[in-house]
Amino acid sequence: MTTHVCLTARALGANGIYVSDSHDSQLVDTMRKVGEEFGGKFTVETGVPWRSTIAKWKKTGGQVIHLTVYGLPLQDVIKEIRSTESDKLIVVGAEKMPGEVFQLADWNVAVTNQPISEVSALGIFMDWLYDHQMREEFPGARKRIVPSVHGKSVVETK
Amino acid sequence: MTTHVCLTARALGANGIYVSDSHDSQLVDTMRKVGEEFGGKFTVETGVPWRSTIAKWKKTGGQVIHLTVYGLPLQDVIKEIRSTESDKLIVVGAEKMPGEVFQLADWNVAVTNQPISEVSALGIFMDWLYDHQMREEFPGARKRIVPSVHGKSVVETK
Repeated sequence: MTTHVCLTARALGANGIYVSDSHDSQLVDTMRKVGEEFGGKFTVETGVPWRSTIAKWKKTGGQVIHLTVYGLPLQDVIKEIRSTESDKLIVVGAEKMPGEVFQLADWNVAVTNQPISEVSALGIFMDWLYDHQMREEFPGARKRIVPSVHGKSVVETK
Repeated sequence: MTTHVCLTARALGANGIYVSDSHDSQLVDTMRKVGEEFGGKFTVETGVPWRSTIAKWKKTGGQVIHLTVYGLPLQDVIKEIRSTESDKLIVVGAEKMPGEVFQLADWNVAVTNQPISEVSALGIFMDWLYDHQMREEFPGARKRIVPSVHGKSVVETK
């Protein structure tokens, strides 16, 4: 599941991810390989404590968005979120979130008002955050996928 | 993972899901409970063979969209897809897809040109399909989540 969160964050244009608490060298390795093949710089830090990560982020002027079904509707808050210049930390979780996260977040945002996956919530949120402009180029890619009607086409780019 | 696909499909407005090949009564049960609590009619059929499911769908005039990184960019084809009146079957898979699926699909669609999760690809595709109009009401819900700035608020509706 964490791999799906990472791939989604990277594909939609995040700079990196912090994975709370548990170390996961396999995840780091998987994402390193994806970066080597498909380009871009996406940092993965695992085993970091969530509380101090959020605190540090806010201390340096960053803002925190927590995706939760209990939050305010995406469509109502996205313009306000987009209008701020600060770096954004988006918090998602598989399990029940500590109540403290709801308080620490600058925005608690609901992607639909229904139970949903944190993977799709993240993807939809980021797509809206970037105003539905999907990023096309990842610098330094070794492979590039060429859009096909019914086939598979991959070119080596270096 | 299949639960995440189901929750995403339901939250974004799909009528139901076919889960290919393996029977999964736990999934059926989970989604039945979600429906009882949060409303709507979302059908789950598991253990269905993918080939005949797609064939039947097409025979009755439905169209098939296969989400794959090798396909045509979402932003280039969504208007054409939206403009058709047919019922849509959206095909996603965790594993390597049989080449036949690429041929059977009316559209092979890429959500970003990067490796991504099928869960977020489905969520983003459906959000675009419905022109970013999230559905607010699911009839017959027993619970409704009330948007909160920093809290959790759920009301019983019957």
